[in-house]
Amino acid sequence: MFVHKLPKVRAITFNKYGSPTEVLRAVTYQLPPLTPTTLHLKFLASPINPSDINQIEGVYPVKPNFRTLGEHEKTAVAGNEGVAQVIGVGDKVEDIKIGDWVVMGKSAFGTWRTHADATPDDVIRIPHEGIGIVRAATLTVNPCSAYRMLKDFVALKEGDFIIQNGANSGVGQAVIQIAKAWNINTINIIRDRQNFQELKDFLKSIGATYVISDKDLQAKNREFEWNKDIEGKGIALGLNCVCGKSVISMAKLLRHSSPLITYGAMSRQPLTIPASQLIFQDLRFFGYWMARWNKENPKAKRMEMLNDIIELIKQGKLRDVVCEENNWGGDDKEDVSDDVLTQRFLEIFKKATEEFRGAKQIIKMI
Amino acid sequence: MFVHKLPKVRAITFNKYGSPTEVLRAVTYQLPPLTPTTLHLKFLASPINPSDINQIEGVYPVKPNFRTLGEHEKTAVAGNEGVAQVIGVGDKVEDIKIGDWVVMGKSAFGTWRTHADATPDDVIRIPHEGIGIVRAATLTVNPCSAYRMLKDFVALKEGDFIIQNGANSGVGQAVIQIAKAWNINTINIIRDRQNFQELKDFLKSIGATYVISDKDLQAKNREFEWNKDIEGKGIALGLNCVCGKSVISMAKLLRHSSPLITYGAMSRQPLTIPASQLIFQDLRFFGYWMARWNKENPKAKRMEMLNDIIELIKQGKLRDVVCEENNWGGDDKEDVSDDVLTQRFLEIFKKATEEFRGAKQIIKMI
Repeated sequence: MFVHKLPKVRAITFNKYGSPTEVLRAVTYQLPPLTPTTLHLKFLASPINPSDINQIEGVYPVKPNFRTLGEHEKTAVAGNEGVAQVIGVGDKVEDIKIGDWVVMGKSAFGTWRTHADATPDDVIRIPHEGIGIVRAATLTVNPCSAYRMLKDFVALKEGDFIIQNGANSGVGQAVIQIAKAWNINTINIIRDRQNFQELKDFLKSIGATYVISDKDLQAKNREFEWNKDIEGKGIALGLNCVCGKSVISMAKLLRHSSPLITYGAMSRQPLTIPASQLIFQDLRFFGYWMARWNKENPKAKRMEMLNDIIELIKQGKLRDVVCEENNWGGDDKEDVSDDVLTQRFLEIFKKATEEFRGAKQIIKMI
Repeated sequence: MFVHKLPKVRAITFNKYGSPTEVLRAVTYQLPPLTPTTLHLKFLASPINPSDINQIEGVYPVKPNFRTLGEHEKTAVAGNEGVAQVIGVGDKVEDIKIGDWVVMGKSAFGTWRTHADATPDDVIRIPHEGIGIVRAATLTVNPCSAYRMLKDFVALKEGDFIIQNGANSGVGQAVIQIAKAWNINTINIIRDRQNFQELKDFLKSIGATYVISDKDLQAKNREFEWNKDIEGKGIALGLNCVCGKSVISMAKLLRHSSPLITYGAMSRQPLTIPASQLIFQDLRFFGYWMARWNKENPKAKRMEMLNDIIELIKQGKLRDVVCEENNWGGDDKEDVSDDVLTQRFLEIFKKATEEFRGAKQIIKMI
């Protein structure tokens, strides 16, 4: 057992559901002492994901863990994803040692904080040689979702085509790269925007086969540049994180009896499906939720997936998501007040909800 | 080979797509002589189904067969379903004899006529002892759709619950009765209406477990009379022929990971699905189309289904759909002009499209 001075934990918390700008506040408390069966973690980096925001708003099905933290009662630490380094290991803990990097074993751990105590079950150790902290901090949600959606709904063969909207999202970028690594072609829909050509070039640079704006998709009326490529095989899978009516024109392009998977609703609209796409085109509409997959599948299967993904990262085939790294400063190197820390965090948070920002916000704790 | 005087065929036809009231007209032509490999049919009765109307409008994926009938060029006979009696059999035809009853082997045969020549492949012989002509004329679409949707999407066990909207439709009534015969419970949603109690009593009399109006379903907010019955097992399957936003409250009641099958869109609205029902409730949305099933499955499997259904009819477990029988008079007993016949047909057709009429229109040719 490594004895270290118990650090002060600085955490972004909420004690009731609501708009994050209103309910989030930084708190400071003493890390509880190590026990023979626990670990001490020092967080390196955590992203701000859309589901974190939904969870704070109270509309996410995985509820946070409201508990007592130091003198703060019924408080939940926000954040579901992140990477931490092990800085303390209880005597009876096996297979984990000081210096290891770990990601979260389940949702709602509370990752927007500098330190935490944890049980070995709370975490999954990852081999981190050759992986930066940003990629490690965003390993378990986006790349894993992309991996599963490409694998679990239809048996894709090399050369097959898939189509996705919101293609510049974190999942979208992972889909492009994993598909490319598996020799699957991607047709990528993004919203029309000022820097369209720049974003198109970027997505092509990471492996996108085709990129089209939602506006062009509607306007082109089936005369697409990929028509020759898909002749005789069509498009075998659709991935949707936008919802609303715009999905209709994407779904129309799928070959009969294909699955269309919804994993988000960035338009904040319900999905609209013409009955003919169900009845005559025989499309099948499924949802995908990483948290359910994690719950329903054994840890061994999850490890297998993480190892596959880490291998792609090491081979340079899965790059960091486009992000902005924010030095939160919530570390005990610096002794700012909780109020200052709250304000700093909300500045980062604002960027995470900005339309067309086009970058995931990462909170760095080192 | 039975030699009979070749009858005049009187048929409801169209030579271009459009509103049925504008494009349908009765024509008269001579039945072609029998050949060694053909049959002569005399139609007994044919229903007017929603898909027949869509086909005339040109919006149904199964296109009619435009051809020359007597002196009428590029003409299609309307109607996809019906029952006919065999009145002539070519020398080389096996397994079919004069007097047999047949239903259509595929869509788009053209069943709104008094007689037809056919090949043995065009038809399926049915044992008709103990089956009335109305039930025989409406055998291949509604009961078969109900049968398949109850069998093919989830393994239902005795005592399970399913839910359906448009429960008084032809398919809906078949679902209630086939489910009852298989000891499956049905929760049936119908639109609120003046004679609600009367319709509710009728649906219960044919086997509905529960009947509720769409208005009550929205209003009750989860305090339903069936809640105790479904405890611990939930509702395992949803059937939808309405679409629009009203499906949301039905889908909400399904247990996690259940299928919701769409086979119609009586509201003429697309289906609207909140992303949360896909992502968090994990509902799976499929379409069902009898014509596709028929195309993709061997005749033996279809015969097995028809025999099962005919057995239920003989046991009194599947009654005639609520219908109005219309003596069209399109027979050579009566020698009215084509114009009179067109007008007579359009009177029947009008009833078929009337809201809340609550009865399928059957054209009788005998």
